[in-house]
Amino acid sequence: MRIVAERFATAGPSDCTGLRAALAGCRLDAREVLAVIGKTEGNGGRNDFTRELAVRAVAETLAGFSGESRDEVENRVVLSFSGGCEGVASPHQLVLARNGAPRREPAPEKRLAVAVGHTRVFDAAEIGRLAMIEETARVVRGLMAELEVDAEDVHLVQVKGAIPDPPAGPAPPRCDMVHARAASALGVGLALGEIAPERLSDEAVCRDWDLYSQVASTSAKPGLARSEIVLFANSADWGGDLRIGHALMQDMLDVAAVHAALRSVGLSPVDGQLPAGERERLLAVFAKAEANPSGHIRGRRHTMLGDDDIGDTRYARCVVGSVVAAVTGEPAVYVSTRAEHHGPPGGGPVAVIARAAPTARP
Amino acid sequence: MRIVAERFATAGPSDCTGLRAALAGCRLDAREVLAVIGKTEGNGGRNDFTRELAVRAVAETLAGFSGESRDEVENRVVLSFSGGCEGVASPHQLVLARNGAPRREPAPEKRLAVAVGHTRVFDAAEIGRLAMIEETARVVRGLMAELEVDAEDVHLVQVKGAIPDPPAGPAPPRCDMVHARAASALGVGLALGEIAPERLSDEAVCRDWDLYSQVASTSAKPGLARSEIVLFANSADWGGDLRIGHALMQDMLDVAAVHAALRSVGLSPVDGQLPAGERERLLAVFAKAEANPSGHIRGRRHTMLGDDDIGDTRYARCVVGSVVAAVTGEPAVYVSTRAEHHGPPGGGPVAVIARAAPTARP
Amino acid sequence: MRIVAERFATAGPSDCTGLRAALAGCRLDAREVLAVIGKTEGNGGRNDFTRELAVRAVAETLAGFSGESRDEVENRVVLSFSGGCEGVASPHQLVLARNGAPRREPAPEKRLAVAVGHTRVFDAAEIGRLAMIEETARVVRGLMAELEVDAEDVHLVQVKGAIPDPPAGPAPPRCDMVHARAASALGVGLALGEIAPERLSDEAVCRDWDLYSQVASTSAKPGLARSEIVLFANSADWGGDLRIGHALMQDMLDVAAVHAALRSVGLSPVDGQLPAGERERLLAVFAKAEANPSGHIRGRRHTMLGDDDIGDTRYARCVVGSVVAAVTGEPAVYVSTRAEHHGPPGGGPVAVIARAAPTARP
Amino acid sequence: MRIVAERFATAGPSDCTGLRAALAGCRLDAREVLAVIGKTEGNGGRNDFTRELAVRAVAETLAGFSGESRDEVENRVVLSFSGGCEGVASPHQLVLARNGAPRREPAPEKRLAVAVGHTRVFDAAEIGRLAMIEETARVVRGLMAELEVDAEDVHLVQVKGAIPDPPAGPAPPRCDMVHARAASALGVGLALGEIAPERLSDEAVCRDWDLYSQVASTSAKPGLARSEIVLFANSADWGGDLRIGHALMQDMLDVAAVHAALRSVGLSPVDGQLPAGERERLLAVFAKAEANPSGHIRGRRHTMLGDDDIGDTRYARCVVGSVVAAVTGEPAVYVSTRAEHHGPPGGGPVAVIARAAPTARP
Repeated sequence: MRIVAERFATAGPSDCTGLRAALAGCRLDAREVLAVIGKTEGNGGRNDFTRELAVRAVAETLAGFSGESRDEVENRVVLSFSGGCEGVASPHQLVLARNGAPRREPAPEKRLAVAVGHTRVFDAAEIGRLAMIEETARVVRGLMAELEVDAEDVHLVQVKGAIPDPPAGPAPPRCDMVHARAASALGVGLALGEIAPERLSDEAVCRDWDLYSQVASTSAKPGLARSEIVLFANSADWGGDLRIGHALMQDMLDVAAVHAALRSVGLSPVDGQLPAGERERLLAVFAKAEANPSGHIRGRRHTMLGDDDIGDTRYARCVVGSVVAAVTGEPAVYVSTRAEHHGPPGGGPVAVIARAAPTARP
Repeated sequence: MRIVAERFATAGPSDCTGLRAALAGCRLDAREVLAVIGKTEGNGGRNDFTRELAVRAVAETLAGFSGESRDEVENRVVLSFSGGCEGVASPHQLVLARNGAPRREPAPEKRLAVAVGHTRVFDAAEIGRLAMIEETARVVRGLMAELEVDAEDVHLVQVKGAIPDPPAGPAPPRCDMVHARAASALGVGLALGEIAPERLSDEAVCRDWDLYSQVASTSAKPGLARSEIVLFANSADWGGDLRIGHALMQDMLDVAAVHAALRSVGLSPVDGQLPAGERERLLAVFAKAEANPSGHIRGRRHTMLGDDDIGDTRYARCVVGSVVAAVTGEPAVYVSTRAEHHGPPGGGPVAVIARAAPTARP
Repeated sequence: MRIVAERFATAGPSDCTGLRAALAGCRLDAREVLAVIGKTEGNGGRNDFTRELAVRAVAETLAGFSGESRDEVENRVVLSFSGGCEGVASPHQLVLARNGAPRREPAPEKRLAVAVGHTRVFDAAEIGRLAMIEETARVVRGLMAELEVDAEDVHLVQVKGAIPDPPAGPAPPRCDMVHARAASALGVGLALGEIAPERLSDEAVCRDWDLYSQVASTSAKPGLARSEIVLFANSADWGGDLRIGHALMQDMLDVAAVHAALRSVGLSPVDGQLPAGERERLLAVFAKAEANPSGHIRGRRHTMLGDDDIGDTRYARCVVGSVVAAVTGEPAVYVSTRAEHHGPPGGGPVAVIARAAPTARP
Repeated sequence: MRIVAERFATAGPSDCTGLRAALAGCRLDAREVLAVIGKTEGNGGRNDFTRELAVRAVAETLAGFSGESRDEVENRVVLSFSGGCEGVASPHQLVLARNGAPRREPAPEKRLAVAVGHTRVFDAAEIGRLAMIEETARVVRGLMAELEVDAEDVHLVQVKGAIPDPPAGPAPPRCDMVHARAASALGVGLALGEIAPERLSDEAVCRDWDLYSQVASTSAKPGLARSEIVLFANSADWGGDLRIGHALMQDMLDVAAVHAALRSVGLSPVDGQLPAGERERLLAVFAKAEANPSGHIRGRRHTMLGDDDIGDTRYARCVVGSVVAAVTGEPAVYVSTRAEHHGPPGGGPVAVIARAAPTARP
């Protein structure tokens, strides 16, 4: 069992040229694709339709190769696009497929393992509350069991949180993107033992900022009835040449954390940046970004939260995208906002997937 | 003779709290102030009125201490504000004053020397042409002579380029910000010997991109009749504890260049960032930024030039401000766009002023 | 006693060319100026510094003629600038001065009378609550008494609502622009008998949308300790050639209301627009605008509230500014947002000041 | 032969609920659909992907009913979506189908007739030049011949202008949206006799602003090899209950022109706006908008062309959409920018389609 993954640069939200070539060339098998995660050049906000366009195009492309209908693909595969390629951040798709049989004996080095799951359908009144936290945690624990990995092997849990349409009338007070992201992140933290169960309650959500996950990366989608979860871990039972690692950025300028994440997968910046040779082994970087809610960073005032021309989420992605691209030398990075209960306020996790060095291959 | 300089964080474009305290506390003498250079939180574009507000407020503050009128201050002191504090970039003022008598003997280490000058009044038809290049070069050479420094000691030449109001009717075709910045930068390059005189012509402006200065930082201001020039160099004849250095960023992600500029003034990033102790010695960073006109950076597509919601200049400042802040750990950086004939397309100079290490003081 | 008023087009927020000429030419006396109300081309939001720049420039100009200091002018004269000249709305200043002695006998036709007042200093905890409503009403009643006018003679009450800096720590929950505007409007409605006192309470603010004033036009300014109020009425005791009228727009497209307001001051659109001759008599139009909070207008979906690139306040001003300019044929209109308790949700008052027709002059 | 048309409000760019219901209910036959013209809530600029999303969704919906492939639908039906629903402008689709046999005898009143055509494939070097003008005119004349109508019966010619991908290297200097729109409009004007052939030349394009069409409405699309043209006229040979009329707005506030266009199809505003009863008969309004390039409107300065936060095209659509919605009382209007050679600078055509009054039906 191994993860086969490729990253494709896109010329626009609906561009599937790279994916189509990989499918046509049999480098990827459409029926083995688990997830497609991408960045599109929308504004990442309420009126960002690039995500829908990308999902349509990718689903249609996969369907053309797998023999499924577009709807069947959308139900089977996690298609998760995040809008916002501010600054140097470059639009791209990361396609993850799983193939092969289980290893008969553990590998000398752990390799990337990925599992995908869904929560049950939520009631609108549960969003942003303990019920959502616990159901999210249940599914995360299930995916860990499926992969037979411990909490310390888990380096990234991507959640697209449910925001079900309320039965009638206005939505319950927490049935929104902020609380759906927050409860999803707390659910990840609960499952991984980062957060003690007794500290969790309805009241803790978006209030007790000491509670957070260092590996969650959650978004939320109005209209989604159940949360979609992709768990990334390293496992000695899996083969392939990919590994994942992570670190926690304490703030948007925490360069040391990006260095630590890179080193954890065997990559070493020189003079502040990955050399070109090592950069080729970098497959993906995921980071969560948010403008420090205090209005200050490193003791200096920032203006991201008081600007009525450009929203703070656009700035946050631009800043962290630039910082990560500066350290890696690679602009095709995945940065999303905001980051409630993902690290301390103003901070957020960064995860890195890289290919093992050729010399390390058996 | 030495440069006394302080950097003040501002709570808004008209905030002069820090400056007023320094003047009231006699840390600065209003009559010795040569230049105030700052960043304000406007959009940096045509409808950015924060610069005018800042200039008014600073001039009024200085006038209150120097006994001059506001107009007299504006004529004597270079007041240069650049709009655009995107992302982590933090609004601030850098105040430069000159005091003391000439040293009787050269110092063991060169120190920051600053001189200020103006071109003659330009005719609108001269803007963006050889006449502007040569007049700019003449003044730069004069300032070098005044400071008795060679080209290799010059690390930054800030120019606010003239864009005189045309006599009547529409402006001549080049009487705009793009050409005024371009010709000003070429003038700096000519004076410093970076550009061979025989390669310069009207036609070379905004066409021959191989010609550039590595130390220019030019802007342009409609209505300004003569260009304002501030030259920063190191000189053995000057005292104080400040030094300046620079490097050329080949593109927006050229972290190595920022490291080189820091090292040139005795500062050394660790794990990709200046340690807190060294950061305190950093007084100012100046960088020029522009979205790579090719639409690509490091082989990846960027979307800065095709976004009709947010302009490329805002992204460019946000990216380079983030990169420089990531390496220095300091958000109060001065980044301005665009960068015609300032390094190769997509690149630009970065200059650093720092205090000498305490141990280095005699 | 009469109001002398002039409207000046501005070439930028700090442009006082027109005002200066009127003062120099003795058409206006700086010591008689009661209020300067204007529109500037900022974004009208938190990072709009054009208002501060305009206030500085106008105060400085008036001070240069009145012999006062700039601070004295700012304390004596209501200087009220609103940012946001979206679309065809054209930046301008309206200067209102009062001169002459009281009439000995009532005029055959009522004329514009203006009075200016301030509330007491508010406590931050009072903002957006009954205390603010009642104090605002008290001052409005006082200004009516001063002018000896009844409620039906009052056609516009402009309030710049206080938002005092809280003593320490975070602001009380209602100490914000929304609640300060809302309570100020309710205060106007209370004073004018539009709202029954027994229906008012802390809870009614921003909840009971049936309560509103049809003549209020309120804004709010962080840092302002007491509200500034300008009351516009018609009075038989006043002379001059100006009259004011108003109507209530039920929604942003309520053209009939604009017609009614114009007719109330003797102006008649032909084929949907004021003819050029009548337009010359139009001195000022004030309108309050807001995107209908239901997300619909006339049964059609609008997208103003879900756009993360451009804020709803900018759209609202652009729409109502266009509608009012379409009916009047005059782009120098004053439109401000938002409009809590100013008419029904999505609607707002429109007031018109016009010169009497030459034939109507005695 | 008659045009059957319906307008559908959309809940998002891909929403085809209304269209699907009309097809399922047999009110429309997918195989008879000639054109779908709509407005989406994108920014209308280079990074507006809502148009592509809408075209995909509509083509897929039609294909599901017609039995064609999506590509076949896109080749047969003109699918023309314009981004930008600023302010009150409401997203919608207008679906035009043609059915029935030719009338045996002319009707007592002329009715709406529509024909659709394509130019030949253009060479990139022809765009914006006489070749494009003449080929556009040839096709327009052909469509007039097909419908057997004279120039005075033609009230709207919608053109999506070709911008072919250049064979290699950079595009020819005029191969852009500005020149493609301009030449297309001149082509319409040439065909209709609005412009004398001897005044046309390569040089006249975007230079001789006296030359314009009063019924053109052109856009341009990069990547489109041949222009798509939809001609709307009234004909005594056609049946149905629809009629079209038009007028020329001299500037964005030309309310009289909107009145004239409405009256030409039997609709009469009262007090500046169509009464509700007449509004129901209004099927569609098409207007072209542009910020007056002089920077002034009606002698007042506007700020649309110097705003670096919000582009002039967004303001222009918002203003004209508001003006047209104010007069019609209907927010589902189609306004597009810019308007080179569509009326005088700052002006543009407005066309109206309405159902005949019930009493007028035989």
